[in-house]
Amino acid sequence: MCSLPVPREPLRRVAVTGGTHGNEMSGVYLARYWLQAPGELQRPSFSAVPVLANPAATAACRRYVGRDLNRTFTSTFLTARAHPDDPYEVTRARELNQLLGPKASDQAFDFILDLHNTTANVGTCLILESASNVFAMHLCRHLQLQSPEPPCRVFLYQMPREETFSIDSVAKNGMVLELGPQPQGVLRADLLTRARALVAAALDFIQLFNQGTAFPAFEMEAYGTVSIVDFPRTDAGDLAGAVHPQLQDQDFQPLLPGAPIFQLFSGKDVLYEGGPTTYPAFINEAAYYEKGIAFFQTEKLTFSVPALPALAPAPTPAP
Amino acid sequence: MCSLPVPREPLRRVAVTGGTHGNEMSGVYLARYWLQAPGELQRPSFSAVPVLANPAATAACRRYVGRDLNRTFTSTFLTARAHPDDPYEVTRARELNQLLGPKASDQAFDFILDLHNTTANVGTCLILESASNVFAMHLCRHLQLQSPEPPCRVFLYQMPREETFSIDSVAKNGMVLELGPQPQGVLRADLLTRARALVAAALDFIQLFNQGTAFPAFEMEAYGTVSIVDFPRTDAGDLAGAVHPQLQDQDFQPLLPGAPIFQLFSGKDVLYEGGPTTYPAFINEAAYYEKGIAFFQTEKLTFSVPALPALAPAPTPAP
Repeated sequence: MCSLPVPREPLRRVAVTGGTHGNEMSGVYLARYWLQAPGELQRPSFSAVPVLANPAATAACRRYVGRDLNRTFTSTFLTARAHPDDPYEVTRARELNQLLGPKASDQAFDFILDLHNTTANVGTCLILESASNVFAMHLCRHLQLQSPEPPCRVFLYQMPREETFSIDSVAKNGMVLELGPQPQGVLRADLLTRARALVAAALDFIQLFNQGTAFPAFEMEAYGTVSIVDFPRTDAGDLAGAVHPQLQDQDFQPLLPGAPIFQLFSGKDVLYEGGPTTYPAFINEAAYYEKGIAFFQTEKLTFSVPALPALAPAPTPAP
Repeated sequence: MCSLPVPREPLRRVAVTGGTHGNEMSGVYLARYWLQAPGELQRPSFSAVPVLANPAATAACRRYVGRDLNRTFTSTFLTARAHPDDPYEVTRARELNQLLGPKASDQAFDFILDLHNTTANVGTCLILESASNVFAMHLCRHLQLQSPEPPCRVFLYQMPREETFSIDSVAKNGMVLELGPQPQGVLRADLLTRARALVAAALDFIQLFNQGTAFPAFEMEAYGTVSIVDFPRTDAGDLAGAVHPQLQDQDFQPLLPGAPIFQLFSGKDVLYEGGPTTYPAFINEAAYYEKGIAFFQTEKLTFSVPALPALAPAPTPAP
């Protein structure tokens, strides 16, 4: 594993973003609440900044109004010259890049924790770009130990040689907290409570690191993206069937060759003909219909994560 | 019970409408499928017409694009002079009124069965204007006997002295089939299969009636709307809390005074202070946030439904 550099200074500039997708309600309402009552995000060594990432989409209770904000933090969008016809989210990504970045600069925030919901039955899913982010892998481990039920699974979203594109990629370190299932536009108190507890645990971890705690090496399972699978479609491009009842809600469970994956409207089943066992994730997520994704195929991997060394104590100020 | 007249002729003109709300996917995809393969809607005495009720909202995967189509079939909208600034759904309601009505005329369709989904945990919910519709109450009874699991509950939506406003009110008789929970924009194969089976059973019932079957009197429980309950809100009108975890998903279960109904973001619980036991329905439906409805309060009622007499046999044509 090629490790990214670990922080050598305390993380002082931390943001918790919600409403990056305007109809994912845990983050929308937590961000709004914290903007009124920020005390919950304070720790002795830092105060996390709450950010309502996509106010226009939140007001419309839609994922986005122009284009998916969480696919817009690439150099193409962030560095192009502004144009009056830019979609709202392109303009907003540039604003957020100024507020929280600039991406890949020394001025960027130290950490962004971005809150999401999915209609898929993923439970608690911690999403990282890759396993090479040692600090974030330690944070995941901390959350797994703090919140053993339901299991916190780690999902590595980035495909090889793909540029990062999500809001958390603007900071030096980041993570996405994805809770499901929750319908778009619905706020479930159970998921809100879980998101809130996980954010608190994440901030506690940063506080522990900032005050000089070292974290030992460990091994961790994570699910890495292999490919995506689209729905069966008619010649005109419409859906020809739905996710099979035997696959629905079975996120992160092994899918064996020969198992049914779709049920066509004609009544016929479509079977999984892939080679090895795969672990489907984000099965039947509402927002992915338009992206041509019925589910992700992932592989279960085990990573050896090196120790996270303690920060050197800050020099004692002269009396 | 003041009974509406029962049909005295066979029901020949029957429609099954889907996509009245463009993000309720069982109806959207069944209507689309039947438009390509209408054989499933044929019976010896009639062929039901499939209708995709709101194509623009369906294309956008939204409940509506201008205003809620299923609140637009009132005399005000149907009879007003057309105007270029009319919302799409007002224009579409007039088109559907021409196709399936005109409402309250002799030319109107005999029956409309309208397919819906909800994010609430209502299971199978059969929605009628009122219990005075004897034909529809017999249809409900037939579906309850055909589909005992999960229970088919009957919900009477209309408040006293309220004008009917939904698409099925355009026909002489009608019913809404509401299945949940299903997120907006998601197609679940289990709910699709259940909707399809219930439509088939409804068409079979009409066929039985058309061929001269009589149906005896019975008693039936149904849930009648008493009032609506809004979410707790801040002074600015934003949500101040969520449906309490103890109430979430408990549609049609008795709610006793003193039980928690909301959990405020501050952590405090809000208790049900109403008088008698109520039966909440459509708890935490996504589309009702904007309508100020956290749930309906209903009362459980028992109705004596008179027999549905057999149609007189048609005169035998002369040889």
